[in-house]
Amino acid sequence: MTTPTAQSPALGTDVPATMRASVLKRQGEMAMETLDVPTLEADQVLVQVAAVGVCGSDVHYYEHGRIGDYVVDHPLILGHELSGRIAAVGSAVDPARIGQRVAVEPQRPCRKCVQCKAGRYNLCPDIEFYATPPIDGAFAEYVTIQSDFAYDIPDSVSDEAAALIEPLSVGLWACERAGIRPGSRVLIAGAGPIGIIAAQAARAFGATEIYISDIAEDRLAFALDHGATHALNARTDSVEGLDVDAFIDASGAPQAVRSGIKAVAPAGRVILVGLGADDVELPVSFIQNREIWVSGVFRYTNTWPLAIQLIADGKVNLDILVTGKFALADSEKALNAGKQPGQLKAVVYPGR
Amino acid sequence: MTTPTAQSPALGTDVPATMRASVLKRQGEMAMETLDVPTLEADQVLVQVAAVGVCGSDVHYYEHGRIGDYVVDHPLILGHELSGRIAAVGSAVDPARIGQRVAVEPQRPCRKCVQCKAGRYNLCPDIEFYATPPIDGAFAEYVTIQSDFAYDIPDSVSDEAAALIEPLSVGLWACERAGIRPGSRVLIAGAGPIGIIAAQAARAFGATEIYISDIAEDRLAFALDHGATHALNARTDSVEGLDVDAFIDASGAPQAVRSGIKAVAPAGRVILVGLGADDVELPVSFIQNREIWVSGVFRYTNTWPLAIQLIADGKVNLDILVTGKFALADSEKALNAGKQPGQLKAVVYPGR
Amino acid sequence: MTTPTAQSPALGTDVPATMRASVLKRQGEMAMETLDVPTLEADQVLVQVAAVGVCGSDVHYYEHGRIGDYVVDHPLILGHELSGRIAAVGSAVDPARIGQRVAVEPQRPCRKCVQCKAGRYNLCPDIEFYATPPIDGAFAEYVTIQSDFAYDIPDSVSDEAAALIEPLSVGLWACERAGIRPGSRVLIAGAGPIGIIAAQAARAFGATEIYISDIAEDRLAFALDHGATHALNARTDSVEGLDVDAFIDASGAPQAVRSGIKAVAPAGRVILVGLGADDVELPVSFIQNREIWVSGVFRYTNTWPLAIQLIADGKVNLDILVTGKFALADSEKALNAGKQPGQLKAVVYPGR
Amino acid sequence: MTTPTAQSPALGTDVPATMRASVLKRQGEMAMETLDVPTLEADQVLVQVAAVGVCGSDVHYYEHGRIGDYVVDHPLILGHELSGRIAAVGSAVDPARIGQRVAVEPQRPCRKCVQCKAGRYNLCPDIEFYATPPIDGAFAEYVTIQSDFAYDIPDSVSDEAAALIEPLSVGLWACERAGIRPGSRVLIAGAGPIGIIAAQAARAFGATEIYISDIAEDRLAFALDHGATHALNARTDSVEGLDVDAFIDASGAPQAVRSGIKAVAPAGRVILVGLGADDVELPVSFIQNREIWVSGVFRYTNTWPLAIQLIADGKVNLDILVTGKFALADSEKALNAGKQPGQLKAVVYPGR
Repeated sequence: MTTPTAQSPALGTDVPATMRASVLKRQGEMAMETLDVPTLEADQVLVQVAAVGVCGSDVHYYEHGRIGDYVVDHPLILGHELSGRIAAVGSAVDPARIGQRVAVEPQRPCRKCVQCKAGRYNLCPDIEFYATPPIDGAFAEYVTIQSDFAYDIPDSVSDEAAALIEPLSVGLWACERAGIRPGSRVLIAGAGPIGIIAAQAARAFGATEIYISDIAEDRLAFALDHGATHALNARTDSVEGLDVDAFIDASGAPQAVRSGIKAVAPAGRVILVGLGADDVELPVSFIQNREIWVSGVFRYTNTWPLAIQLIADGKVNLDILVTGKFALADSEKALNAGKQPGQLKAVVYPGR
Repeated sequence: MTTPTAQSPALGTDVPATMRASVLKRQGEMAMETLDVPTLEADQVLVQVAAVGVCGSDVHYYEHGRIGDYVVDHPLILGHELSGRIAAVGSAVDPARIGQRVAVEPQRPCRKCVQCKAGRYNLCPDIEFYATPPIDGAFAEYVTIQSDFAYDIPDSVSDEAAALIEPLSVGLWACERAGIRPGSRVLIAGAGPIGIIAAQAARAFGATEIYISDIAEDRLAFALDHGATHALNARTDSVEGLDVDAFIDASGAPQAVRSGIKAVAPAGRVILVGLGADDVELPVSFIQNREIWVSGVFRYTNTWPLAIQLIADGKVNLDILVTGKFALADSEKALNAGKQPGQLKAVVYPGR
Repeated sequence: MTTPTAQSPALGTDVPATMRASVLKRQGEMAMETLDVPTLEADQVLVQVAAVGVCGSDVHYYEHGRIGDYVVDHPLILGHELSGRIAAVGSAVDPARIGQRVAVEPQRPCRKCVQCKAGRYNLCPDIEFYATPPIDGAFAEYVTIQSDFAYDIPDSVSDEAAALIEPLSVGLWACERAGIRPGSRVLIAGAGPIGIIAAQAARAFGATEIYISDIAEDRLAFALDHGATHALNARTDSVEGLDVDAFIDASGAPQAVRSGIKAVAPAGRVILVGLGADDVELPVSFIQNREIWVSGVFRYTNTWPLAIQLIADGKVNLDILVTGKFALADSEKALNAGKQPGQLKAVVYPGR
Repeated sequence: MTTPTAQSPALGTDVPATMRASVLKRQGEMAMETLDVPTLEADQVLVQVAAVGVCGSDVHYYEHGRIGDYVVDHPLILGHELSGRIAAVGSAVDPARIGQRVAVEPQRPCRKCVQCKAGRYNLCPDIEFYATPPIDGAFAEYVTIQSDFAYDIPDSVSDEAAALIEPLSVGLWACERAGIRPGSRVLIAGAGPIGIIAAQAARAFGATEIYISDIAEDRLAFALDHGATHALNARTDSVEGLDVDAFIDASGAPQAVRSGIKAVAPAGRVILVGLGADDVELPVSFIQNREIWVSGVFRYTNTWPLAIQLIADGKVNLDILVTGKFALADSEKALNAGKQPGQLKAVVYPGR
């Protein structure tokens, strides 16, 4: 702990040399391993992970060994929704940060490309993102992140809520891009975790009518209790003619996307969050005639500060999403938890 | 010509009681007829039509008797690209306007709905648009239009160019919505009249690289001479990887739309101008991953003043598009002219 | 009540030929008069006025006989914050509107100029605005307004709150132009009616820190109860260094404007609502170095629908502003009410 | 040249250990000195300076020893408008860059703060800017800059033009913030280098009427030849009533700022570029009544790529601004050159 170079050990206390991690060895195979605690670069902090949410993409890597062009051809640590405590800091980081509870924004943009310098670092072609091959994620006792991507959280924000700021950021970014503002009328397709989070985010952005559609009545009921103002059964209720200002798809279902677009008023916006087929047939002439804007979200930029504030102010409640809690050694169970009815979000605790 | 009420005859001189018009009686059948000169409302002007461009939508009504939900179930006067001279004015219009050469914006929004009051009058649900059933168009000696939709043109702008401000407006509106700005790199699919106009408009907006794609080499050569900087043969040249800031489709061809989208850089925009199938399969995950915005244009708002200036300043040249000239009685020939090779834009002269 | 022309009498029931009105005869002189009920144009409604808020500009016309270039050189009916009930409709308006309770947006743009057609009708050079010479206002039993500027209100919105949508619109428009969004930090100078309304509006736009400054402790205490999160005594507390995202001046005091600007973070916005001196010395190099945007509000556009929703949803409370209630014959007392300590908003009831 | 660390010597060839520099020792005193060639950090390049433009701020530091809070209390190398050739690269930079001609964006933002990550790196509170105490500038044979802030230039761009991309960037950024677009009408106050550059930039953004005002007829004549469409003598011509879309002040003269604002149409924009008094009396009620936006520019972001393209395309001509050429040892003469009539821009050549 002497020379403050990029290769120096962490400037901190009580950091062991090795750590436990739950590793996806290959498609469908998880294993507990003992690995070196990652080395800190000058501008990074070492975070002792407290809680990690399980995301659909984690499950997809586990089950299919790939997402699109990203292939798990080497062992990979999953998990990108995380909170923890700073255990050590790099040479260029204020040591006063050690001990602070933080929520981690799990991406490392290059900061130098056209996209980064325009403020769109989520679109950086050289970005590294947790749990996306070959970048390891957070099913481990320790992770590193650039100091400015580890955000202090107040005591009032639980470890679980701090971890779930990652999916909340997706919802906030979707609302931002959907142009939600006071008085907006919004349709959200899909009452899973992202749909419910998007409903809460839309409410925080001032939306006054928040329609949510799904085929599962229990999900709809839950969504009505936690953000939505109207529930629609996608099997029986038509959304055409709603003429909402914005449609956010959190289902990834082509039919929901198509009918959702037809629910949008002239000059409205459509934001596709859900991942489904690479190619989907869209009602193009409807989009043209109404000059509707259609886009998607690819992660997010600069959402953590707002997210922390919304949680601290009680305007968003993420704790209600947690339906399963797992020790690190039970990560595989956590990855399978979503198959049970009524499950929304599993959380893994690397310290347990 | 005494009481200045909405029902009063036109306040003007030398306006006859009847006029000649070329009427689409039903699908595929044109006929010359003698009709009453239309009555002026208080805020309208009566325009003696000088030149009318033939648009693809005119041809479509003529050949198919409908466009989507708009059906020609009564005789309809086609033509919505027009210039002329003010022959008379309504009671609330300054008589000094009589005699002025004008370009006509062929739409009548309600001015009272949410869209109109937000400045998006093209999206007015109650709008009346020339040559769209049941609203008559301009293949006639006289038409009426609200005074503020008849724009004075200088002597340096020809009758033909003034008429073609309508398609130029489509191109300008597409560039506006595509976010074209100085230094933009743009791909345009389709080197027909709209594609060439869009290329000129993009150049006027400051685009520095303007790629145009088509399958007809003669069209590409013409486009290179009149706005585009690069020509691509859609059969042999791939556009993927161009990473343009904006893609404007003026082809309506689903394959061109799909490949054009894949030519767009992250955070870029896609504007669909061409009309084709109601539903088109789009590369949704590509759109999501790059956060590309996709929309279309539905006519335009507030484009005539800029269009007139661009023509007067020589930054846009519409006269080069005129490849056929027809007397009113030859309107049917004008509608069929586009079937000949090398034809871009036919113009009908109601005064001849 | 037969021919539906612009000159026809009102299509309604029980509308008398004359009405009582409280008229500003000249500077400082109010008088009750009996006047003809105004004639309806085709697109107007006749509103039986229920409640009228007294605005600082009403008081200014009463006390000084002018505001800037607007001079009271003929008798003028004051009052532009109003609600009522539709008593009759013009020939082009659906008679079903008769009987509906409405909030009135007291302006009549031309709908045809560049500003109107761009959606900025508040900047229409030919606009007519209530209680601005020579246009009469609402201290009368009946007024006319274009039908689309009379907005239906639900039973849950009181007559007073509906009248005060006008000042609320100023606050909403200020927040809109100030770019307030979820998580914004805002400073408001002046804890009078507009300042308190702006604080409520900012909260509705998602602002999380809302500082309000004033020199009157009772006003600050009231503001803290009704929208603001922090109160600052302008005599003793410095605002420099707050680094807020937006500063809204509702004081009109040059010193408050200057120090408020210095409280704004880089890229922040300043919206001047308060009216004071025509010319004010501003910290220009500070504005340049931080690239702060400075502007003002001139009335509002398209705010009534959102305002009604915010009141109905309980997100804004206007009833708490009413500190004095007056019969029409007591309009002069209402105009003088603001001189008493603790008075925020006087309301006149033309039906009493 | 062995270990690729931040402290390593430059990875390049033929770089001497020392260099000549022209140093501002204290207010009013320049001296030639021999200094160590600056050390490269990993992400930097070492640029052998070819040409340096003299800016008014250089002259101000030389004459007054300070600008606002920035005080020359240690010897300082002036000059921040520069081009050159890459002589060596840091360990993280592609060695293929060595030998490339470049234009240098003379700022080093932190890349990590809220402003940087939002794409507004010019507003970074920790930015380092050339020739701003205590950061040295370019009146020297060599300088260092982060690799992504050294932009390759084509052969068609002269050393002088490449250096003057810095003031061009100010003009482009002013036009960007002024919202200049095709058809805009613009007023520019001040026909010095920045005014002429702003006029050229406005033309490149599509402005069609570009009024420039000054008190010097020769400057006005020059401006008319190089960008402006109309010249106004500030002593005799009034600009009120022009109703331009945008006003750009490049004069710093309070009276020009005030009258320029009054030339702006409703919803127009004012961008203050010129530096003058810290506090200026502005026509606040005029700004409010027209909802005019007023701001300034503080340097620029992301302008070099566009600037290079505009020069290469011949849309902007910077070479015409160069009225004096000086060897490095004559820097003091260069700083004094502007006092002669007809002088616009002096250029220093550190290689001479």
